[in-house]
Amino acid sequence: MAEPLPDLIEEFVNDSTGDDPATILMALSQQDTVYIASLLESLPVERRLVVWEGMPRERKLAVLVEMRSDPREILIDATPHNEWASIFADIDAEDLLELLDSLPNKLVDLAYQALDSQERKYFRDATQFPDSQVGHWINHELLVLPANAKVREGLRLLRREVPQHCDSIYLVNRSGQFSGLVKVTRLFVAHEHASLFELTEEAVTPLLGTEDVSGASLQVQRSGFSALPVTDEAGKLIGRLDITSASELINEFYERQVMASAGMDEDEDLFSPVAKSARNRALWLGINLLTAFLASWFIGLFEATLQQVVALAVLMPVVASMGGIAGSQTLTLIVRGLALGQVTPANMRALMLKELKVGGVNGVIWALVIGVVAYFWFTDVMLGIVICLAILFNIVAAALAGVFVPVILDKLKIDPALSGSVILTTVTDIVGFVAFLGLGTLFLL
Amino acid sequence: MAEPLPDLIEEFVNDSTGDDPATILMALSQQDTVYIASLLESLPVERRLVVWEGMPRERKLAVLVEMRSDPREILIDATPHNEWASIFADIDAEDLLELLDSLPNKLVDLAYQALDSQERKYFRDATQFPDSQVGHWINHELLVLPANAKVREGLRLLRREVPQHCDSIYLVNRSGQFSGLVKVTRLFVAHEHASLFELTEEAVTPLLGTEDVSGASLQVQRSGFSALPVTDEAGKLIGRLDITSASELINEFYERQVMASAGMDEDEDLFSPVAKSARNRALWLGINLLTAFLASWFIGLFEATLQQVVALAVLMPVVASMGGIAGSQTLTLIVRGLALGQVTPANMRALMLKELKVGGVNGVIWALVIGVVAYFWFTDVMLGIVICLAILFNIVAAALAGVFVPVILDKLKIDPALSGSVILTTVTDIVGFVAFLGLGTLFLL
Repeated sequence: MAEPLPDLIEEFVNDSTGDDPATILMALSQQDTVYIASLLESLPVERRLVVWEGMPRERKLAVLVEMRSDPREILIDATPHNEWASIFADIDAEDLLELLDSLPNKLVDLAYQALDSQERKYFRDATQFPDSQVGHWINHELLVLPANAKVREGLRLLRREVPQHCDSIYLVNRSGQFSGLVKVTRLFVAHEHASLFELTEEAVTPLLGTEDVSGASLQVQRSGFSALPVTDEAGKLIGRLDITSASELINEFYERQVMASAGMDEDEDLFSPVAKSARNRALWLGINLLTAFLASWFIGLFEATLQQVVALAVLMPVVASMGGIAGSQTLTLIVRGLALGQVTPANMRALMLKELKVGGVNGVIWALVIGVVAYFWFTDVMLGIVICLAILFNIVAAALAGVFVPVILDKLKIDPALSGSVILTTVTDIVGFVAFLGLGTLFLL
Repeated sequence: MAEPLPDLIEEFVNDSTGDDPATILMALSQQDTVYIASLLESLPVERRLVVWEGMPRERKLAVLVEMRSDPREILIDATPHNEWASIFADIDAEDLLELLDSLPNKLVDLAYQALDSQERKYFRDATQFPDSQVGHWINHELLVLPANAKVREGLRLLRREVPQHCDSIYLVNRSGQFSGLVKVTRLFVAHEHASLFELTEEAVTPLLGTEDVSGASLQVQRSGFSALPVTDEAGKLIGRLDITSASELINEFYERQVMASAGMDEDEDLFSPVAKSARNRALWLGINLLTAFLASWFIGLFEATLQQVVALAVLMPVVASMGGIAGSQTLTLIVRGLALGQVTPANMRALMLKELKVGGVNGVIWALVIGVVAYFWFTDVMLGIVICLAILFNIVAAALAGVFVPVILDKLKIDPALSGSVILTTVTDIVGFVAFLGLGTLFLL
C-alpha cells in the first residue's frame, strides 16, 4: 500500500529544509493531513519533533487525530503547554474521543472546556460506550426530519446545510425512533408534495449503539451508503457510523491481527524511544522464554539418551519445526475463521476431521521423506524409523492443536491472534521433542 | 468481526432444513448476498453443495461474486452446464472480472457472450490492466457532463438516472479529459444558470488507471467521496473506483498479509478438499524442511562437542527461539512499514540503529537472566557464560536480520510478508546454534 511519501521522508530526514519553519511550512502546505500524519510517523523522533514544531498550529489537531497512539504521544509530550489552547480551538467531540487515550488528564480537561455544550453532551454520551462498541464512534452530523415530512421540507433542509459525506435524510417518529432513510438523490426525481416516507430505502436496518464495532463497520462498508444510522435499544436515533470511521476501524482490526502475531500492538511506533520499545517487547520475549525453558526441561529428561545418540540432538530442530509450521497453518486458518464468524460449534467437528486428514496426508509424506534423509545421513535404519514416527505424530498433533488452541482461547475471551502461536509452538515443541527422544530411548539404546 | 451467522451455520450443518429446497429457499430469502456467501464458505463441502443446489438461480451469480476463490471454485465445478445460461443472464463486466480467475475458459466465453456490446468493451478495457492496477477494478456507472454545462443540465441528468452510490457529477472537456467533480448535494443550493465548473471541489486529484490498487483504494477510503474518478495517462476519464470496491480490495490486502505469514493465500477455503489443501500446504512445509535441515547440518558440525556436553543439546532451543522471537518482532514492524510506504532508503539507517539498540537492551537483559538460570540448572559457570554470550549475539543478529531481510526481499519484489519469517528464522536458528555450540566448543571442552 505504497504512498507517495518517499520524497518527503527523504527531504525531512536529510534536513534539506535547513529546519527553517517557513520552508517546512511550504513543503507541508501541499500535503493532506493523512500524508502529514504518515510522514511524521516515518521520521526518527528528533527529526519528527523539528517538523512538528515548524507546523502551523491550526493543522496540528487534525494531524494528531490521524496518527497512531504511540508516535502521537511523543508529539503530545513535546508540545509546550501554552500551545494547547490554540490547538484545541476548533476541537469537537469526535476529535477528543480519538485522542482520549493519548492525552494526559489535564489536557483532556482543557479540551473538554473548549467544546460547546452540544459537543460536550456528544462526548459524554459516547464515553458511555466502550471503544469496542458502535456508540463510541458515532457521528452527529445528521439530516433528520419527522417521518411525516414532505419532499418540499427535505429540499428546504438540503438547501440550508449538507454535512460532509451525507447521502441520506433520516426520518424519525414523534418519540425520536428511526423510521427510515431517504437518499438525497431521490429528491431530484420526487414531487414536491410527495411524502418522504414513501421514498425510504427498504433494506436498511439501523445499527445498535451497543453492537460490536468491527461487525458494524463491515456492514457500513458493504451497505454502499456513506453511513448507517445508529439507534439505542429503544430504537431512538442517536447518530450514524460513517464510512470513513468504519474503514479506519476495519483497517485497525486487521493491523491488530498482523501485529499481534509478533506480540505487538497496532499502535507500535516505528521510531519509539529505545527504552519504551524494549519494555514493550520484553514481555513477549519473557513469555516465550518460559515456554522455551519448558521445552528444554522436557529435553533434559532424555539427557542419557542424547549422550549416547548424538544424532538425536542434531535432528531435534527438524521435528520441532515441522510441527510448528503445520500447526501454524491450521491455526492461521482457524483464527481468521473465528474473526469472520465462520468457525462455530456447529462446524467444529467437520473442521477438526478435515484438518486431521490434511495433517495425516502431509504427516505421512514428510515423515517418509525425513526418515529416508535421516537414514542416509546417519546410515541408521532405526533412527530413520524413529524420526519418521515422531514427525507423523507431531504433524497430526499440530493439526489438533491448531484447531483447539484458538477455539479454546476464543471461548476464554483471550485474543487467539495474540496468544495462539506461542501456545501452539509450545505444544508442538514439547510433543515433538518428547515423541522423538522418547521413541529414540525405546528403540535406539 | 463476528457476524450473525452461527444460527444459520448450525441450521445447515445439522440438516434441520431436511435438505428440502423450499425450506432452504425460505431460510435464505431473508439474508443478504454477503451473508449467504459467508455461510456457504462456512459449510463442509457436502452440505455446501446441498444448499447451493437449493438456491434460486437468480441469486447464484451475486453470491459467487462475493465468495473467496477457493470455496467458489468448488461450487462452480459442481454446477451443471445447462444452468449457466440462466446464471449468467444478468452478468455485467464487473461480475465477470471478479469471477475471471475461477471460471474455466469455456464458461468465460459463455459469460462474455451474455454481455452486451458496451459491457464487452468495458471487460476488454479492464483486462488491459493487471489486477494489481486500478484500471482492472473500475466502475463505469458515471454521471458525466461537459465542463461548460450549467446547473440546470446537472439537475436534468439527476432527474433521469442516478447510479448506485454516486455522489458526484464528473466534468470533462472536449477531449474527454477529467476537469473537475461536483457533489450532487451542491446542486440543491446552486442557481439554475450557474456554471457547474464553479462548483467543483478543489482537492480532488483523479486516480490513474495504472496506479497500484492498494494505495489508490486507501485514497478512496480517505477521500470521503463514494468514489474517485480514474483517468488514463492522457487525463481522459475512463471510470471511477468506488468505495465498495476500494474497501474490499483493502480487506483483501490485509487478509493476504495475515495468511501469508503461514504460507497460505487469502482465498484458502476453510473446507477445501483434503488433497487440495494438503498440496497447498506441502510446499510451505517443504521449504521449511530445507531450512530445518540446513540448521541441523550446522548442529552436526558440533557433534563431538554435543557428545561431551549434553547440556548444550538441552539448551539449544532456548537460544534459537529467543532469536526467532526478537527477530520476528522487528520483521513485523518493518513489513508493516514497507506496506504503508513508511520505510524508505532515507530512514533505513535510523531504523537500523534503533532496532540494534532495542536488541542490545533486550539482549543484555535476557542473556543475563538465561545465563543465571543455566548456571543454577547445570551448576556450571562457564555454561552460563557461554549461553549468555550466545543469546546476546543472537538477539542482536536477529535485529539486523529483522530489518535487512524484508527490505532486501522488497527490493527483489518478493513479498516480505510471505517469505520474511522463513528466511528470518533460518538466519536466527543458524546464528544461534553456531554461536552457542561454537562458544561451547571453545570454552567447555
